[in-house]
Amino acid sequence: MEKTIQVQGMTCGHCEKAVKGALNEVEGVQSVDVDLATGAVNVSYEDPATLEQMHEAIEDQGYDVV
Amino acid sequence: MEKTIQVQGMTCGHCEKAVKGALNEVEGVQSVDVDLATGAVNVSYEDPATLEQMHEAIEDQGYDVV
Repeated sequence: MEKTIQVQGMTCGHCEKAVKGALNEVEGVQSVDVDLATGAVNVSYEDPATLEQMHEAIEDQGYDVV
Repeated sequence: MEKTIQVQGMTCGHCEKAVKGALNEVEGVQSVDVDLATGAVNVSYEDPATLEQMHEAIEDQGYDVV
């Protein structure tokens, strides 16, 4: 499955790494691509990963999912 | 000694941490205070730390000293 999550508040490469790292720790996430300029985070995933878990992982890092 | 270094490009808490961490690794640096909004980095230091080393440490993290 593939989904683009719109994230607010990422301002630099460190932010990108923080979000990528958190998503990659969700079991089932296969790849993460971040477009820092637009805040678009593209995630490829399979079971057991859920969108809810991914949103939580992002918010735990201090960013907002739009 | 105390010096305020004006740094460009710090956008978030991660940037602040990166600059602080790099400066604290310079031998002789005693304390670092970062004002993210203005980019002002206040450093207390003693020998053998030099301003040149501190500038280098900041630039190595990808930020510009004004």
